[in-house]
Amino acid sequence: MEEKKPVVGVTVGDPAGVGPEVVVKALADPTLYEGVRPIVYADGCVLEAALKATGSALRIRRVHSPGQATFEPGTIDYMDAGVLTKPVPCGKISAEAGRAGFTYLDRAIDDALAGSVDGIATAPLNKEALQAAAVPFIDHTAALNARAALSVPMTLFLAQNLKIFFLTRHIPFRQIAASITQDMIIEAIPLCATYLRQLGVVNPLIAVAALNPHGGEQGLFGTEEINVIGPAVTRSQERGYRVAGPVPADSVFHRAREGCYDGVLSLYHDQGHIAAKTLDFYGTVSLTMGLKFLRTSVDHGTAFDIAGQGIADARGMIAAINASGRYTLAVKASLHQKQ
Amino acid sequence: MEEKKPVVGVTVGDPAGVGPEVVVKALADPTLYEGVRPIVYADGCVLEAALKATGSALRIRRVHSPGQATFEPGTIDYMDAGVLTKPVPCGKISAEAGRAGFTYLDRAIDDALAGSVDGIATAPLNKEALQAAAVPFIDHTAALNARAALSVPMTLFLAQNLKIFFLTRHIPFRQIAASITQDMIIEAIPLCATYLRQLGVVNPLIAVAALNPHGGEQGLFGTEEINVIGPAVTRSQERGYRVAGPVPADSVFHRAREGCYDGVLSLYHDQGHIAAKTLDFYGTVSLTMGLKFLRTSVDHGTAFDIAGQGIADARGMIAAINASGRYTLAVKASLHQKQ
Repeated sequence: MEEKKPVVGVTVGDPAGVGPEVVVKALADPTLYEGVRPIVYADGCVLEAALKATGSALRIRRVHSPGQATFEPGTIDYMDAGVLTKPVPCGKISAEAGRAGFTYLDRAIDDALAGSVDGIATAPLNKEALQAAAVPFIDHTAALNARAALSVPMTLFLAQNLKIFFLTRHIPFRQIAASITQDMIIEAIPLCATYLRQLGVVNPLIAVAALNPHGGEQGLFGTEEINVIGPAVTRSQERGYRVAGPVPADSVFHRAREGCYDGVLSLYHDQGHIAAKTLDFYGTVSLTMGLKFLRTSVDHGTAFDIAGQGIADARGMIAAINASGRYTLAVKASLHQKQ
Repeated sequence: MEEKKPVVGVTVGDPAGVGPEVVVKALADPTLYEGVRPIVYADGCVLEAALKATGSALRIRRVHSPGQATFEPGTIDYMDAGVLTKPVPCGKISAEAGRAGFTYLDRAIDDALAGSVDGIATAPLNKEALQAAAVPFIDHTAALNARAALSVPMTLFLAQNLKIFFLTRHIPFRQIAASITQDMIIEAIPLCATYLRQLGVVNPLIAVAALNPHGGEQGLFGTEEINVIGPAVTRSQERGYRVAGPVPADSVFHRAREGCYDGVLSLYHDQGHIAAKTLDFYGTVSLTMGLKFLRTSVDHGTAFDIAGQGIADARGMIAAINASGRYTLAVKASLHQKQ
């Protein structure tokens, strides 16, 4: 069984944010090690500060390669990035912190690409700090896409048994309806199917959410279901995909929870986010699919307002690491099979 | 304590739909009577058919006024509408069923206005059947507004401890952003506050949901928070209301669940519906506020596809009757106080 636990690189994110704290808190949970072999990417001084802030009795042990790690609960194995020699002030945007946070990610990506870690789980970075450090990527996603994309990267939300994809994300609400096209949906469905299969779902059934209230009620409250979404679902079915919809958005997530669908393609950011985060705010995990390895992530930011106080909630980080433990090897096996 | 239980008129809705079944199933739960004294509005033959369809051992007892009811678990007290002498075919739209369903509602409204029942809980009507019967109202809401409005009627969703209002509802998604104005929000807030107080919330704090992802992120993903919602919140605060927001829609419902807010004003149908129904699909209850009495309702339709088979899920009806038991007398007391 031991061999079935993936080695997961856990990056602490921006050292001025809550990342180091939530990582340290997460690794204090010995049950976490039942499903995963974690190695932290950080600087020693950052971890020491986080242990102090959280009053943790954990020890830290520097390793020079993932192969040196022993993964004993109670001791955090970490790869030292060699960037910071003293902790940065918490809650402050700085080039120093941006550079450090990016380096942790960069090293974890190196090791994931080299195969010495199986996947990565990331704590939050700060966009402004990355900019201040002149890092050439605006965020995690951009860096991962540039360095490790295999096909079209796609975010998948996990919340309890819900698996949610997004057709559009960070665009103004006003632009959503006009942004959604048949082609976009037709192109997204095969990716959703592939990524669900990578997570171990055999022959996945995907539900496409509707846009309008009651799914438009036969055109009474909007026509996108009739003109755009419905035809895209039909075309996808004709191409051999198992797709249902458009399903009214206020029942599609419930029905997926009940097992009617393996995944839901939501049409806009809040459609899927409201479902996941109302249901399980702390347990919602973001998975980045389409990379050369699985990346899981907390769905919160650096929370500079509370950073360094030891009060940040670690449930999201625990969920992200657990999700990595659960799915990393399945994704890896699926990618190797393909090659 | 007996006196604290409201007398609630329970209408079975369209007799060709699942309404009679879910009412009969709900009243088979003896714990229901702990919080409510129910009287059903129907025809005897409709109830008999529903008992048969559900294999129920309950008895029915016709009363000629609510005062005659004895509210004993095991026996359904009902007011006979005298419309149908034999059951209508299940799952079929008909003028006969539309007329009957409307009459049950009409009689319950009569008795609620006369004060012989304290509030009503309704099973679903069918719009097409109402039309076929030439009923001058398109749905429950229209009939209730015409006969029993006291101020501006407003729907409130209850799901677990969430209380959700809606600024807009049955409009195309494409029109939502342009439909939302400062004035609408400023006018809605006092109603939300009044209705939360009627439900027993002292000095309510209302959160207004944001429209854009991440609440627009300082204008990056939309400007309605800056130009419309934010100023409306400020104006409402200046007028003395306890209002927060705009709060990003993927955290506002979670925070309300945690007790940070007493109610949430959602800006569009699915925003509030996704939250409520993903969280608690069967337990979501719709309350109509602003009437001369409290009306609660299931949040599902007539489900003609399964009507008459005895398989319809009664949890929504149970939740609607329980909510009536919990809130009817508070609303009544509050309205009397006002006069």
